[in-house]
Formats: sequence, C-alpha cells, structure tokens
Amino acid sequence: MILYELAGRDEFRFSPFAWRTKMALHHKGVEYESRSVKFCDRSPIEKSGQERIPVLVDADTWVHDSWSIAEYLETACPDQPSLFGGDTARAHARFINSWTDMVLNAGVFGLIVRDILDHVHPDDVEFFRSTREARVGKPLEEAQEGREDRLVAFRNSLQPLRQTLKSQKYLGGDAPSYADYIVFGSLQWARCASPFQILAEDDIVTNWFSDQLELFDGFGRKAPGYPA
Amino acid sequence: MILYELAGRDEFRFSPFAWRTKMALHHKGVEYESRSVKFCDRSPIEKSGQERIPVLVDADTWVHDSWSIAEYLETACPDQPSLFGGDTARAHARFINSWTDMVLNAGVFGLIVRDILDHVHPDDVEFFRSTREARVGKPLEEAQEGREDRLVAFRNSLQPLRQTLKSQKYLGGDAPSYADYIVFGSLQWARCASPFQILAEDDIVTNWFSDQLELFDGFGRKAPGYPA
Repeated sequence: MILYELAGRDEFRFSPFAWRTKMALHHKGVEYESRSVKFCDRSPIEKSGQERIPVLVDADTWVHDSWSIAEYLETACPDQPSLFGGDTARAHARFINSWTDMVLNAGVFGLIVRDILDHVHPDDVEFFRSTREARVGKPLEEAQEGREDRLVAFRNSLQPLRQTLKSQKYLGGDAPSYADYIVFGSLQWARCASPFQILAEDDIVTNWFSDQLELFDGFGRKAPGYPA
Repeated sequence: MILYELAGRDEFRFSPFAWRTKMALHHKGVEYESRSVKFCDRSPIEKSGQERIPVLVDADTWVHDSWSIAEYLETACPDQPSLFGGDTARAHARFINSWTDMVLNAGVFGLIVRDILDHVHPDDVEFFRSTREARVGKPLEEAQEGREDRLVAFRNSLQPLRQTLKSQKYLGGDAPSYADYIVFGSLQWARCASPFQILAEDDIVTNWFSDQLELFDGFGRKAPGYPA
C-alpha cells in the first residue's frame, strides 16, 4: 500500500491524522510506502477526488480521511489483529475520535501553533502561516503567546483520558486499539512539531503515551521529534 | 433484584447514576424493585459496605457503583442483549463514562444546582444545601446565577457527542449501548430536577435524547420531570 502523508521539514512528520493511520498500518502489520505531500501542492493525491491528507492507496483503491482508512484496513485485513474490536467498539471509538478532533486537537494547536511553522516543509511556510492566521485571526506568534498560562487548562481537559487510564492500561483495555492511536496521534503531533512539553512528567497520560512510542519496535519513538 | 436509588421529593428520581442503572436493567429485561434512599439516612445500603447510591442487590450479592453494576448485569445476564458489545467496546465506553462524570456532569450541575434543591426529599434539603455549598464555595443561588450566560459554553462542550451522532444513530451504533445510557442519565438528571432547558430544540443531541426517552415503552418519558 502507499500512504500519502503530510510533508514536513527534513524528516519531521507531525500530522496527527497521519499518525493515527501509520499506527493502524503497523497494528495490521501492513507494509507500506510513505510518500509526502505538501500543503501547497496536492497533485499527488488528485486521484482521491479531494484535498485532505492522509490518503491510502491499495492497488486501485484510494481511501481518504483517517477514520475511513481505519475502517478500510479493518475490512481489508480481517485476519490481522482487530483495530476496533467489533461494531459497538468502533461506534464507541467514534466518540473518542470526535473528542480528539474537537477538544484535544484544539488544545494542542493553541499550545504549539507557532512552533509547527518551524517544522513544516520550506515550501509550505507561507501557506501554513496565512491559512492558520486566517483561522485564528491573529499572528501565529500571538496565538501561541502565553501558553504557559494555558497549560493548566489544557492538562485539565485531559481528565477523561486520565480517569480512564486509572482503570485500564489502554483505551482499548489490556491492549491498544485504534482509539489509543487516535489520541496518541495528537500527542505525537506535539512531540514532532514542538519542544514545548505539553504533559507533566508524573502524569499517567505521559506513561501511556510513552508505552505507545515503544510499540512496533519503537516506531513512534524513532520518528524525529523532541524528548517525551 | 432490588435497586436502592436516591430518593427525591414525591416521585421525582433524578440521580444521573441511578438513571444509568435503570436503563441498563431495562436493557437486560430484568425485573427489579426500586427502594429509595435518602442522602441523610443511608442505613438501607449499610450491607454494601459503603455509602454511595445506587446499589443493586441480587439475592445475596450487593453491588455498588453504576459502572460496576453494569458490568455485573452484563455477566449475570449473558443471554440478554449485551450492554457493552464486547471487552474492547466496554473499555472504550469507560472513556465515555469518564467524560460524562468529569465534563458533562460538571456542566449540568452548574446549570441546575439550585433547582435540584427543589426536588430532593424534604428530609434531605439541609444535607443537600450544606454539602453542595461546601463543594462550590458559595450559596446554591449564586452558583446557579447567570446560567443563561454559561449555556453557550455548556452546549459547546457537547460537541464531541454532537459530532458522533452525525455519523451514527447512537453512541453504540445502530442501537443504544450502555454508553448511550451513561450520557442519557445526565440529561435525564436535568429533565427530572429542573425546568431549565439545557439543550436547544434543534440540536441533534435533543433528538437522540428524545429517542431514548421512548425506549422500553417510554420508561424515561414517564418519569416525573419537565418537557424535553
């Protein structure tokens, strides 16, 4: 399979959505070739009929949207370990996906948005700055300013995750499921695009994140990024 | 089975945790006798070895904590429809349980805390006021004041739920699972303890809540409360 994922400067690959997909591919034991796509030139994914990254290509099948890719992999590789653990588990995981998109990602974005700029592909610097500044309505420097003061609120927003991990090792229970990879992707986004430590060292969430960095022969840990 | 649940004024029964359990009992088709317990006198549940309500009694087995009760019912009634849909689904549901406890319930509490006082058992009025005022650090009237201004933030906090329900009918997928009952319990808490409309009429969350009020021959709808 071929994975089209967001390019970054040098070997940095920080997209939270690409991380969800890459962990899912490893979970399924699928070999894939990664090809990077710049924000400013999406021609490589033209055949997918839309502009969002990541896109997975399996022979003639083009699949976009990280959630749809996970569903595709679950169906295409039924003999490999399940990503979801059944229909109801998949339905429940969608809530975790929505929470991550709307709460967690919004929180992380506000803490590292200016730092991301230092890790995008050189050709994407202008695109990233202009689109994101239009979104937040101010310069990226200002958007990130005062992040130390927002850290307590951000860490508080992780309470549902923290509370859950007090009762079970992974969101998926004894072993990681796609739900874990969804949330992992957002923390890996921060680790791969900013030196700012968004988690406290003694947080159970930090331990859980570290455990996932070790999965698949340390796949996540080996990715260029900052200490976590 | 016998369910010890929080008493209220007259026939009002608003505890969000009791609602989770009652929906789970109906889902499993279990007949049960409800006995009410006042905040100020927990002697009926003494045998459970702790003070929290609800408590379920099945012959000689005393089970407390709504989550544990759901797990107990899942095991005790294996031939009835599953509450969780498997181990992974149960693990994922725990995140929804944590989110509900920490985010949703905190939000609802701030909107209706003074109204709840009008619905507690007469013997519990003093207990409820003093313990809750100690918790929020101000008179209940003040804690609830200005709720109209907090309504937008509260409704925004439901975004993960709303987003999920755009893709599937229930949190459990095509049919309700215990995850639905968890969140239902908090909205039913508001409906049964306050005339204040915490949801907008045109919200997909409102439709989903209404659908659940109709389940089990309108069990939720028939409970004394306010229009929803």
